Amino acid sequence: MTNLFAVIMAGGSGTRFWPASRHKKPKQLLALGKTERPLLTETAERLLPMLPAANIVVVTAAHLANESKSALPVGASVLAEPAARNTAPCVGWATWELLKKDPEALVMVLPSDHVIENPDAFRKTLAIALASAASGVITTIGITPTRPETGYGYIERGAQSTGGAYPALRFVEKPDQKTAEQYIAKGTFLWNAGMFFFRAKDMQVAIRAHLPALAEQLDRMNSSNVQDIFPTCPSVSIDTGVMEKLAQLRVVPGDFGWSDVGSWETAWELGERDAHENVVPAGSITVDAKRNLVKQLGTMHGKLVALVGVEDLVVVDTEDALLVMPRARAQDVRLIVEELKKRAQTGQL
Amino acid sequence: MTNLFAVIMAGGSGTRFWPASRHKKPKQLLALGKTERPLLTETAERLLPMLPAANIVVVTAAHLANESKSALPVGASVLAEPAARNTAPCVGWATWELLKKDPEALVMVLPSDHVIENPDAFRKTLAIALASAASGVITTIGITPTRPETGYGYIERGAQSTGGAYPALRFVEKPDQKTAEQYIAKGTFLWNAGMFFFRAKDMQVAIRAHLPALAEQLDRMNSSNVQDIFPTCPSVSIDTGVMEKLAQLRVVPGDFGWSDVGSWETAWELGERDAHENVVPAGSITVDAKRNLVKQLGTMHGKLVALVGVEDLVVVDTEDALLVMPRARAQDVRLIVEELKKRAQTGQL
Repeated sequence: MTNLFAVIMAGGSGTRFWPASRHKKPKQLLALGKTERPLLTETAERLLPMLPAANIVVVTAAHLANESKSALPVGASVLAEPAARNTAPCVGWATWELLKKDPEALVMVLPSDHVIENPDAFRKTLAIALASAASGVITTIGITPTRPETGYGYIERGAQSTGGAYPALRFVEKPDQKTAEQYIAKGTFLWNAGMFFFRAKDMQVAIRAHLPALAEQLDRMNSSNVQDIFPTCPSVSIDTGVMEKLAQLRVVPGDFGWSDVGSWETAWELGERDAHENVVPAGSITVDAKRNLVKQLGTMHGKLVALVGVEDLVVVDTEDALLVMPRARAQDVRLIVEELKKRAQTGQL
Repeated sequence: MTNLFAVIMAGGSGTRFWPASRHKKPKQLLALGKTERPLLTETAERLLPMLPAANIVVVTAAHLANESKSALPVGASVLAEPAARNTAPCVGWATWELLKKDPEALVMVLPSDHVIENPDAFRKTLAIALASAASGVITTIGITPTRPETGYGYIERGAQSTGGAYPALRFVEKPDQKTAEQYIAKGTFLWNAGMFFFRAKDMQVAIRAHLPALAEQLDRMNSSNVQDIFPTCPSVSIDTGVMEKLAQLRVVPGDFGWSDVGSWETAWELGERDAHENVVPAGSITVDAKRNLVKQLGTMHGKLVALVGVEDLVVVDTEDALLVMPRARAQDVRLIVEELKKRAQTGQL
């Protein structure tokens, strides 16, 4: 499919991976999977069996454009957002740009910061979603849930599939525990993973219909005025701004070892573990040490790590900060970030 | 006392403070007390109320001479040993050198790597020991024991003191637990802290009597042949080579908050603790963290340290190594060092 394009959304910020994740080094630029390569790199290269690098567009923040570009296969292009306006302007801008190149563009929109352990199964699911989108119906992928997770949004699917794509009945926000358990029991609820598939022309129609102010700005936008216009676009997600309002939407269930890598705890779960389940740099010395995660960033790479008698810890060593905590407290990284904000040391984030 | 001199023995190596202590950065050059200054610096400056810096001589290894010099008050001098030959040649060399300067030199020999929490009491004890030595009797200080320690040698004292200095009846090696408990119960056993006080001429006589081969080499040694002669001196400690053989030796009991800082555990005990008994760099963020020791060395100084929910850990962060272990495992640093030797990575020690 020469008119197949991928739009990778890589504008994320966030603090759940402090001190590794910072303003200039968000999660997608960190190596949080089994390899030493950034999640963004993994995301792009996972697609190369399906399309040429030149058909990959990464939408990111201006201050991340250079590092994002260097994390990508040669030929991929970068759209640098002058301001963060959530995902609808991001998807819209990419859609308008692709239509200039190819009026028949078939587009997949993917997050840049997820881990996928089974890329073959992933690409098979993409093919089903793309076939559905090629027929003129905007389509999403929903992850087959493995637990009653309360941290994700869900998509309820209908009963009858069209070539593997089901009607998407509704989006639901993060449920409470009891509701999540009901969703799992019902078997027709899937996790919303933020992946969307469409013909560019169909998305343009949808944005015109549901976000007309955004469409108008995208019509006027070009390379010489994007700095002025983009920051004035409405800040709205593609989910609530478009997807939830569509008369027809399809969802393809996917089961390909997906994780959104929500915390250091998840990074440990996904990492390459040694015989004692430590995820540590090569060459580390571990004595009676079990189930620890040690991450080195930047110039800390290559430092010898020695763990003696410690278990279930997260240790993150960057050039300007060192974090030590139990894996079970991974969510409490936010307490550190809050304290730093309190200290008005925002430069350290 | 213008003819009062201090000889500080600073040739130590050792691996108990890995990864901070290395070949080029032994314990005495580390800040292991309450301040950010090396133990050697603290040792020298503690003496300045008693003598001018010019009367301080530091004996160290050749490869440590420059860093030792820069850790000392201006005016102190350094004798750089071409090879490590234990403490008798060290004390002997300094004695012979001081006699060239001042035939009436009164000398105190002190270790460079101990912590003394009460310097006033320490100096009062020194004055008693020096008065005893000035009368022509070689004198030592014995630390009043606070526990049945099996890691130190003991000195048994006699019953009758001469101005605070008791006859030293015998040196005993590190005892077993039961024997150590008997020593404490008896009340006449003191810890050998390696501090010696003498008129230089008395020590010269003692070395001639008990280590004649060493005395002969020291007689021949001068600045142009020290490189050749010193390495051939007998490798023997001043304790076994001289002190234990003296017909008359006195010991002054001392109680001045002494510690030989034997491990990272001791460094935590001696450090400046916060409200939750953490010994951490200024500005650290601690959340539910208790009784931890975090040490930064070299360029790691100034890195933000964040501890969440961890207790009783030792964390040592140097430019080329990061160590994490429970305080209770401090002795097991040797396992790391052994592993490194096994890897033939001796350059990293």
